[in-house]
Amino acid sequence: MSIRIYGDTKSGNCLKVKWVACHLGLAFDWVEIDILKSESRTPQFMALNPAGQVPLVVLADGRPLAQSNAILIHLAEGSDLIPADAYDRARMLEWMFWEQYSHEPYVAVARFQMAYLGKPREDLDPKLVERGAAALQRLETQLVQTPYLVGDSLTLADVALVAYTRVAHEGGFDLSLYPAVQAWIGRVESGLGVS
Amino acid sequence: MSIRIYGDTKSGNCLKVKWVACHLGLAFDWVEIDILKSESRTPQFMALNPAGQVPLVVLADGRPLAQSNAILIHLAEGSDLIPADAYDRARMLEWMFWEQYSHEPYVAVARFQMAYLGKPREDLDPKLVERGAAALQRLETQLVQTPYLVGDSLTLADVALVAYTRVAHEGGFDLSLYPAVQAWIGRVESGLGVS
Repeated sequence: MSIRIYGDTKSGNCLKVKWVACHLGLAFDWVEIDILKSESRTPQFMALNPAGQVPLVVLADGRPLAQSNAILIHLAEGSDLIPADAYDRARMLEWMFWEQYSHEPYVAVARFQMAYLGKPREDLDPKLVERGAAALQRLETQLVQTPYLVGDSLTLADVALVAYTRVAHEGGFDLSLYPAVQAWIGRVESGLGVS
Repeated sequence: MSIRIYGDTKSGNCLKVKWVACHLGLAFDWVEIDILKSESRTPQFMALNPAGQVPLVVLADGRPLAQSNAILIHLAEGSDLIPADAYDRARMLEWMFWEQYSHEPYVAVARFQMAYLGKPREDLDPKLVERGAAALQRLETQLVQTPYLVGDSLTLADVALVAYTRVAHEGGFDLSLYPAVQAWIGRVESGLGVS
């Protein structure tokens, strides 16, 4: 049995799992879950993930695993997407936790509200706009110094952070203000074979 | 040189780093940073952590590391706080990412606003109250089944989640509604030697 990935293709959190599975050459089935139709809140789905969130992976042995970044780390263990050096690995994790706390809740939420709920930019909570821009600026500050978030090679930190950064303009963010970020998006997409 | 931990003792995110360092018998110096006085936003501090957040650790070799859960994993690598089994390790990470996305932003923020900013319970954003209660209920559902979040032993998942759960009442949450959670708090505190 191959891996089953339950995901919504509108969600960067879900797509990043798909990209890593493809990049690693893992066989998987994709099960589309429409969050706008509350398909992640059905009793059947909640039995697999009590948090009621996608992505969810059911591993080859039938055991479930949730949380996009935990899934990435599990799938990529032993691959070149995770640095061998202990400090570099810790920095990768630092970026991945920062992503879920200080980037996704602003950049992804602004995009979801505008692109999928049809909210005009001027009606967004100003906190989303301000903190989303701060998160993009923090990426820019790092990426003028190094080609990837953790030094010279593509790691899961880049995968985790590119997912919503590459569609930040759909949340009204002007990516041309962050040229190092724009160049990095191209490098990461190309490294992952995503277009 | 020993590790330096920059933290605010009001913050569960900071205390959990201290608990793990103590549990593992690591030598460290604690540098108190008062977030209410914006001490994590000074130019000196931002040079160490551009995210302007505590906890921050400066390792024995002088290199900085931020994000509480990334620090825990780095410090505890190879110890019994991280399961040897790959799936159990992935579940531990699942809980740790869930903590920062679905627990801390509600349980810890409600507590911070009430206990440190002096906001009355009735003035809290209802989302904090509702989602905080949902997070505590999810812990309860797991902990009626297993003594720790990942099966039978104490892991970093318990450390990460106990930090703000044990003070959830300071954010107006009634922990007596979650008896399995209460019993688990006692087990984890005892396992870590925290009182």
